[in-house]
Amino acid sequence: MSNSTNQQILLKSRPVGEPKESDFALVETPIPEPGEGEVLNRTIYLSLDPYMRGRMSDDRESYASPAELGSVMVGGTVSQVVKSNHPQFWAGDFVLGYDGWQAYGVSKGETLRKLDPNQAPISYALGITGMPGMTAYFALLDIGQPQAGETVVVSAASGAVGSVAGQIAKLKGCRVVGVAGNEAKCDYVVKELGFDACINRKTQDLSSALKAACPNRIDVYFDNTAGSILEAVLQQINLGARIPLVGLISQYNAETPPPGPNLMPLLVKRALIKGFLVGDYQHRQAEFVNDVSKWLQEGKLKYKEDVVDGLENAPHAFIGLLQGRNFGKLIVKVSDDPTR
Amino acid sequence: MSNSTNQQILLKSRPVGEPKESDFALVETPIPEPGEGEVLNRTIYLSLDPYMRGRMSDDRESYASPAELGSVMVGGTVSQVVKSNHPQFWAGDFVLGYDGWQAYGVSKGETLRKLDPNQAPISYALGITGMPGMTAYFALLDIGQPQAGETVVVSAASGAVGSVAGQIAKLKGCRVVGVAGNEAKCDYVVKELGFDACINRKTQDLSSALKAACPNRIDVYFDNTAGSILEAVLQQINLGARIPLVGLISQYNAETPPPGPNLMPLLVKRALIKGFLVGDYQHRQAEFVNDVSKWLQEGKLKYKEDVVDGLENAPHAFIGLLQGRNFGKLIVKVSDDPTR
Repeated sequence: MSNSTNQQILLKSRPVGEPKESDFALVETPIPEPGEGEVLNRTIYLSLDPYMRGRMSDDRESYASPAELGSVMVGGTVSQVVKSNHPQFWAGDFVLGYDGWQAYGVSKGETLRKLDPNQAPISYALGITGMPGMTAYFALLDIGQPQAGETVVVSAASGAVGSVAGQIAKLKGCRVVGVAGNEAKCDYVVKELGFDACINRKTQDLSSALKAACPNRIDVYFDNTAGSILEAVLQQINLGARIPLVGLISQYNAETPPPGPNLMPLLVKRALIKGFLVGDYQHRQAEFVNDVSKWLQEGKLKYKEDVVDGLENAPHAFIGLLQGRNFGKLIVKVSDDPTR
Repeated sequence: MSNSTNQQILLKSRPVGEPKESDFALVETPIPEPGEGEVLNRTIYLSLDPYMRGRMSDDRESYASPAELGSVMVGGTVSQVVKSNHPQFWAGDFVLGYDGWQAYGVSKGETLRKLDPNQAPISYALGITGMPGMTAYFALLDIGQPQAGETVVVSAASGAVGSVAGQIAKLKGCRVVGVAGNEAKCDYVVKELGFDACINRKTQDLSSALKAACPNRIDVYFDNTAGSILEAVLQQINLGARIPLVGLISQYNAETPPPGPNLMPLLVKRALIKGFLVGDYQHRQAEFVNDVSKWLQEGKLKYKEDVVDGLENAPHAFIGLLQGRNFGKLIVKVSDDPTR
């Protein structure tokens, strides 16, 4: 890649079922020029998140319009400003933006947030202090409303969202049980993050493992996955249980939406399932940033990143994310991080 | 039946799937004597309600313990006091109780509520001014929270609960669409109760009928049935939709709980499903009684009863209730009603 060349990953075809690398195309294009009020950014980190699978399809209703075929895949980015035509940004600034899967992006200044590399590693803005962390914070506290002494179950427990949700539930005095996809993740969740227990969904029977790990049954289920975990949890909820439905990772690759669990336990236990989207909480970002920054500084929250090198590896890494191959918040290091 | 003989219907065997008449046994026993603080009642009306199916099984978790084999089937009753050893009741009083499927019952006085036959027909205490009406009132207003101009869909729309829920939603200024099981019920719901539309689920395609009847999509779904109606509704909910889950009539006879709908729309629309049980609202009964009595007196609420004659016909009528054969609130007239 020459100094004047941009690398971009385009959505070439809409995946059917599991995405394949051939659904993406890596192209080289000239580095764009920022216009009036715009900023040219060099991407340092690209965030990969399960929601992106939804953007690749156009056959179902989703939060947002699908990515267009032949255009750059969308995604959150942490970048350094190369050239600015916006009064609030200078070359050298670090910014959080939404430039997508490319090495250089041009953004309107208004859409960028400046990052202070002395406060936290700049990549954290894609994870624990960014959208995934805020999802964990508000979905758990607003919908889940965990009370001290209650039992909280978290699926995808070692992931970007689940790892934060479970730690916050511990801070609130709950018994916290994770569900994760392998032993290393379970070990991490219990030994590093301080969950009380973690169930390996690949090797353990969910129902009996939940029963053993939740002797007082389940008051809050932070659901990143839906599918069989939700089904097993519903059989063991307490009266008035709350289930923030944050993701349905188990079915993002499904060609037709699979049936859900039988809902009888909701009636019997007067429980609720409520869908959550972090965008609805933008106006309350300050609460989140205050609490999470403090907890990070006090060492009460731990955070793990899974860093993949090179934009060209983004498709492979993304496919692995939907299979649970990542371990921690998945980000792609697109270019050097001068702060580390 | 002689004057000293009681008739009782016992649960003889636990139904597998749809109940059969042979699951019940009609027996004659002596009329019991009331003890200290107790009251002997002659049953006038027995309420038949879908929840009773749950009490007949012991293989799944339910609100309450199952009816015991060989004992009188449970159920709400409107009766006349024959003999009282309780200071607050006199022979001749009309009372609401829970004497079950029998011609005479003995109750502790504390469990009875006196009825005033001048205020409303005494049988209404089993329906619109009783448990089904209160279910409609609180599930709609507390969980559904209908706002003027919103669209509310109600399943089992001509039934004891649905007919009240839909009329209250109309009083709140909503567009109300019912779903019912035949043309006569649909006619009644629209022409008598004033719903804006009603879908015949037996002859119409639910998805396209809902689309046509709900041009602004669906904000509240008052769910008495779950099953395919819930599935079709979920595809057409608006942002922030609320779904009180009040019954799962569609599956009460199922031998194994069927899968539920895919829950992706809950996430996309940040909607909620919440289970409801009227017993949780006992402390707020006064609000309900005030509003509904007023609306009845003002002619703003209409109410239809489906009266079956003779206790011996209760099993057949109950089986029909789960098949949707009744039309209006199903009650069994066990003995003469001196107020009509």
